[in-house]
Amino acid sequence: MKSTQLTIKDIAKSLNVSISTVSRALKDHPDISQETKDLVRNYAEKFNYRPNVLALSLRRQRSYSIGLIIPAIVHHFFSSVISGIEELAHKEGYNLIICQSNENQYREMINLQTLIDHRVDGILVSLSKTTQTFEHFSEALNSGMPLVFFDRVCEQLEADKVITDDYEGGRIATEYLINKGCKNIIHLAAPQNLVIGRERRNGYCDALRKAGIEVREDRILKCDTREEVQTLRNHILNLAPDIDGIFVVNDSTAIAVIQVLQQNGFRIPEDISVIGYGDGPNASIIKPELTTVVQKGYEMGRESVKLLLQRLNNPAADINYQTKVFKPTLKIRQSA
Amino acid sequence: MKSTQLTIKDIAKSLNVSISTVSRALKDHPDISQETKDLVRNYAEKFNYRPNVLALSLRRQRSYSIGLIIPAIVHHFFSSVISGIEELAHKEGYNLIICQSNENQYREMINLQTLIDHRVDGILVSLSKTTQTFEHFSEALNSGMPLVFFDRVCEQLEADKVITDDYEGGRIATEYLINKGCKNIIHLAAPQNLVIGRERRNGYCDALRKAGIEVREDRILKCDTREEVQTLRNHILNLAPDIDGIFVVNDSTAIAVIQVLQQNGFRIPEDISVIGYGDGPNASIIKPELTTVVQKGYEMGRESVKLLLQRLNNPAADINYQTKVFKPTLKIRQSA
Repeated sequence: MKSTQLTIKDIAKSLNVSISTVSRALKDHPDISQETKDLVRNYAEKFNYRPNVLALSLRRQRSYSIGLIIPAIVHHFFSSVISGIEELAHKEGYNLIICQSNENQYREMINLQTLIDHRVDGILVSLSKTTQTFEHFSEALNSGMPLVFFDRVCEQLEADKVITDDYEGGRIATEYLINKGCKNIIHLAAPQNLVIGRERRNGYCDALRKAGIEVREDRILKCDTREEVQTLRNHILNLAPDIDGIFVVNDSTAIAVIQVLQQNGFRIPEDISVIGYGDGPNASIIKPELTTVVQKGYEMGRESVKLLLQRLNNPAADINYQTKVFKPTLKIRQSA
Repeated sequence: MKSTQLTIKDIAKSLNVSISTVSRALKDHPDISQETKDLVRNYAEKFNYRPNVLALSLRRQRSYSIGLIIPAIVHHFFSSVISGIEELAHKEGYNLIICQSNENQYREMINLQTLIDHRVDGILVSLSKTTQTFEHFSEALNSGMPLVFFDRVCEQLEADKVITDDYEGGRIATEYLINKGCKNIIHLAAPQNLVIGRERRNGYCDALRKAGIEVREDRILKCDTREEVQTLRNHILNLAPDIDGIFVVNDSTAIAVIQVLQQNGFRIPEDISVIGYGDGPNASIIKPELTTVVQKGYEMGRESVKLLLQRLNNPAADINYQTKVFKPTLKIRQSA
């Protein structure tokens, strides 16, 4: 791109405001009035101002890009995380570039290498379902690339982490079903190699035990996608007459189960209560509206960037790795 | 990262298969049997194989990354596009890196520059709602960066484009309402600086005219998000007793309108028929299920990559710019 272009300095001079005001106005910073923003933006547009990111990064020896590796963009939870990440990252002058692992360890490894090759300043990661080894991450950490894991983290790796207390999430959901009178509660679970899968399941098991209800392996099904609900359709319908509650590891699977049960004459919640996990927008579109565990995706995204910035802004400092834990809550609607 | 690591060649030799088989097995290529995939992957995992993308790109003088700029990751349509892009891109050995403009022209400009600085081989773009000038794109094109626009394209720019016939989409949706007996049909529209906004609206207007129904400006509301439905709530409820049909520019807005109308005692479709646009998974979660215009996001994503690869694989060739047009269809459910 050409370099003989209008700079922020030119705009500041012409409008008789500070350079920082122009910069913040263009970035939609909350401290700048709408009037000033309109003024600056109209001027920038009229005279065809273009930000020069490369020049900026060369000057500061950083790329001012943060990389993000997520399993699947389509999940509402990850969209919320992305909003939280971008809100803080943009405010601090960083741009976000996103790669999707599609729940595939090999793709995750390529994503990681791509982001490193493209010289991002740091990387935020939520693990794919199929990731079983972690050397790609430990090598990146050892080579000095700042990494922060969120939601789906790895127990074996020492790194900064942002998680929800998923054990607590599984526990409060199951306890709520028990308090509503449910005695035969099944759990549709995530893969058990994921920490979140194990923790939510452990919360479910302990809540049952605490209430004196036997934990039965045949009442825990590995089923965490809409597609798997279709595959297990007959199995679920065979179980249905004997159960009165289902704790499902995510909302989209919970909604698919409700639809299958309703199509086959079961009433929710009269015959069977259902609780999901996530609290995305679909939870209030389904009838009955879904009772679900709330995950604070936006806040988790912000917190992940905060931990990353701490390292980027203090590259020489020997900061201990931190784990931030968010407490889940239950959003009570009508499905349980 | 260290370079003294296991290569695809080593794996091929040890397992006595071709290098291409190993490469395709790791990429989950459909031509390779599940048995071979398991064999290769177990071996790769056991001996800690890591893909070396940087070495690959240095050898071939390409980064083998494609950039994508989209307005918002949360939309189901864009998730489908991403799936289509990745399916073909991965098969051809490219990794995808994604930036979100958040419907902001300035952010879109930073995204574009970031992707160029990070040396992607080509960029796919769907415009932000607020983008009013296009010099950032024409300069990138002039500098030789291959760009393909999809869905939200720019009429002024000569470039490869992949679009849906949105005029036709607006027309068939409105015609369907008219055929169902609706005479007072309002349109909730996207911003008119977007080609898709104008085209869907034009389709709506022409269908009315063809049926001899007057086009009234006060029956076209700029309203294309859930939030705007809340803002216009009272206005929509004031109109509701006088109307019998609504053509809405996207599904999530259509669902929000249905919810507001139902909460206020209007029956869908008995009192008011509603048609959306997009056909995401929410369309079959809402009751009544949503009749909507089907957009082939997955196919559009694939087609965009195809056009891009044509340029990447023939850098010297002077290929004429192409526009691929997908025909929309109507998915008939219960809301109209």
